[in-house]
Amino acid sequence: MQVSNRLNTINGTGDDGWGLFNRSRKMIADGVKITELTIGEHDIRTDASILDAMHASAKGGHTGYATIPGTNALRDAVAARIQSRTGVPTTRANIMITPGGQSALYATHLAALDHGDTALFIDPHYATYPGTVRGVGGVPVAIAATPENDFQPQIAELAAAASDPRAKSLLINTPNNPTGVVYSRDTLDGIAQVCKDHDLWLISDEVYDTQVWDGDHLSPRALPDMAARTMVVGSMSKSHAMTGSRVGWICAPEDMTEHLINLATNTNYGVPGFIQDAALFALNAGEALETQVAAPFRRRRDLTLAALAGQNVVQIVPAQGAMYVMLDIRATGLSSWDFANALLDQEHIAVMPGESFGAAASGHIRVAMTIDDAAYVDAINRLVNFAKSRISEK
Amino acid sequence: MQVSNRLNTINGTGDDGWGLFNRSRKMIADGVKITELTIGEHDIRTDASILDAMHASAKGGHTGYATIPGTNALRDAVAARIQSRTGVPTTRANIMITPGGQSALYATHLAALDHGDTALFIDPHYATYPGTVRGVGGVPVAIAATPENDFQPQIAELAAAASDPRAKSLLINTPNNPTGVVYSRDTLDGIAQVCKDHDLWLISDEVYDTQVWDGDHLSPRALPDMAARTMVVGSMSKSHAMTGSRVGWICAPEDMTEHLINLATNTNYGVPGFIQDAALFALNAGEALETQVAAPFRRRRDLTLAALAGQNVVQIVPAQGAMYVMLDIRATGLSSWDFANALLDQEHIAVMPGESFGAAASGHIRVAMTIDDAAYVDAINRLVNFAKSRISEK
Repeated sequence: MQVSNRLNTINGTGDDGWGLFNRSRKMIADGVKITELTIGEHDIRTDASILDAMHASAKGGHTGYATIPGTNALRDAVAARIQSRTGVPTTRANIMITPGGQSALYATHLAALDHGDTALFIDPHYATYPGTVRGVGGVPVAIAATPENDFQPQIAELAAAASDPRAKSLLINTPNNPTGVVYSRDTLDGIAQVCKDHDLWLISDEVYDTQVWDGDHLSPRALPDMAARTMVVGSMSKSHAMTGSRVGWICAPEDMTEHLINLATNTNYGVPGFIQDAALFALNAGEALETQVAAPFRRRRDLTLAALAGQNVVQIVPAQGAMYVMLDIRATGLSSWDFANALLDQEHIAVMPGESFGAAASGHIRVAMTIDDAAYVDAINRLVNFAKSRISEK
Repeated sequence: MQVSNRLNTINGTGDDGWGLFNRSRKMIADGVKITELTIGEHDIRTDASILDAMHASAKGGHTGYATIPGTNALRDAVAARIQSRTGVPTTRANIMITPGGQSALYATHLAALDHGDTALFIDPHYATYPGTVRGVGGVPVAIAATPENDFQPQIAELAAAASDPRAKSLLINTPNNPTGVVYSRDTLDGIAQVCKDHDLWLISDEVYDTQVWDGDHLSPRALPDMAARTMVVGSMSKSHAMTGSRVGWICAPEDMTEHLINLATNTNYGVPGFIQDAALFALNAGEALETQVAAPFRRRRDLTLAALAGQNVVQIVPAQGAMYVMLDIRATGLSSWDFANALLDQEHIAVMPGESFGAAASGHIRVAMTIDDAAYVDAINRLVNFAKSRISEK
């Protein structure tokens, strides 16, 4: 039987890095002890108090259909959080609760694009971005952000891509996965100008907004005249260690939110009420909980800098935010694939090849800082020694 | 800012019945006591044992990303349930767990259709069917199933619509919402033949499969040569009173399941692990729990027949399954909209106008059997008296 062309081509033609990931998982299943630094998953679990709040909600009877846009209480809490952090007036009419950030990425692209329209995004990028665009029938176009520019996108290149009349949206992610870079104010000002000049929707993936190690997170929705053309994707996954709960949101103009609610009625029919109540409890716990969840990554970023000091075989990209560090291993002469595969085989350390996130990250590897500090430092030290040994072999 | 045309038109132009529903909800909010018979929501909550299983899973640490296609244990349990009920060999490779039946409807249509392709479905229909097709960029085409044919679709009409070369799928729902009809073996044989003759995917929405009052549920996937072209949509919502948990599945050919997993990676990133564990617990509870959840509807269907006996102003469509009865009120001379609105105003009883489910159900109203028996019988009696009063006014 025929499968739709959209679905048949959703993965594109490149290797998206799951090959290495799956090989690592198979080695683990075969009994090999692997140090796993591939995935953006916390080494803590969802806090017990949040799970207790979820259970209390479920036992209290919140087990029927919840309203599609989300409960008023959670929409209000998300709106208040956004307004307090960005200064942009925000009410529940701007908020739709979604079953996780990924479904928010999908819905925002479906809302911005018609079939055959172009969606811009930055390379390197989170694994699902091009598939998300293909899944809505759009054409994904990547704009490279290179290591020479500290992985900040260049505005002239963005403007050139945006001049395509089919271009309807630009997707950015700051703090950035996979690079750990936070976009500068200049970069964001330039992005905003491109969106206004070329009438693009800005889809701003801000799921790492609580994980900024220097300065503050700046949401581009707060820039002049941008609230009317920005859809912010948020999530409880990274900020509250609730990856498995699948709860996030879209913050959008009011009329767009109404459209997104109509869409959700046809795509997923909303989010479990007891999960929404758990998310509400977690948000009401305030910034202290978010700081606590972010703390290990802040600490390990500093440990990474310390471990890399005094050598220049492995260089670190400015590590400003998110749960990852991007390491430049070009001095070894190895491709990111070869480095990652050899590191897995020889040191039993699993990291993601930079190229699995796009061509701009070639010669780099992404390390998720998601194991305990001592094991993490040991892994970085072994990784550096492995890189050095490759140089001495040259 | 521009919204995609797909999203702008997703609701079509008709009134989908939510107008009456929302008016009823507003009256309730204003303090009016309304007898609510609009929505397919059980008057019981999710069983406490299921919620306890969910909590145990979450507290046990199943709070991280679950695998996209679903846990092996749940996929195995769903496959075993389907195989035991249909006789069709089924393994986990045929099953993808979804965040509810609606997302399964969306994914299956996205898998079957490319932009501009035609999706067939039967009128009257569940509210979201045309919007789901529009949401994937398809063209929804309804084939009427009329009261003259007991709301069974006519095969010649289906075949005529299927001869459109752009037609790629046919969506059916038996037991049927809104009519309460169960498709006959002859109807299903004819449907299967049309799908084979015209190379259509059959998307079989079987979420009411445990609510059949006479005979057994027949899944068309079990008909000769149909497993390779059928995608079954299933859900825990109706069978286990887990509407708010948003967990369901697609049962499809193995290669299609692989495609659907790729799609889910880009549309929702899977279902919470603790909800999957709750669903597994509920399935493992066996048929006894499903029979218990279905029992009130079986009982109230009999109460409906008894309440309608001895008069012929309000006639009942063959009530063979699901949580609803469809009542023929054409003898009153009122449209279904006028009847429903007047019933709400005068008797404070909220039902859904038949036309909100499609033109074929004009002159009918859908009654959800979702309140306790005594109140339900009282509502039916008042509804009949209201209908009689309208006739005497003519």
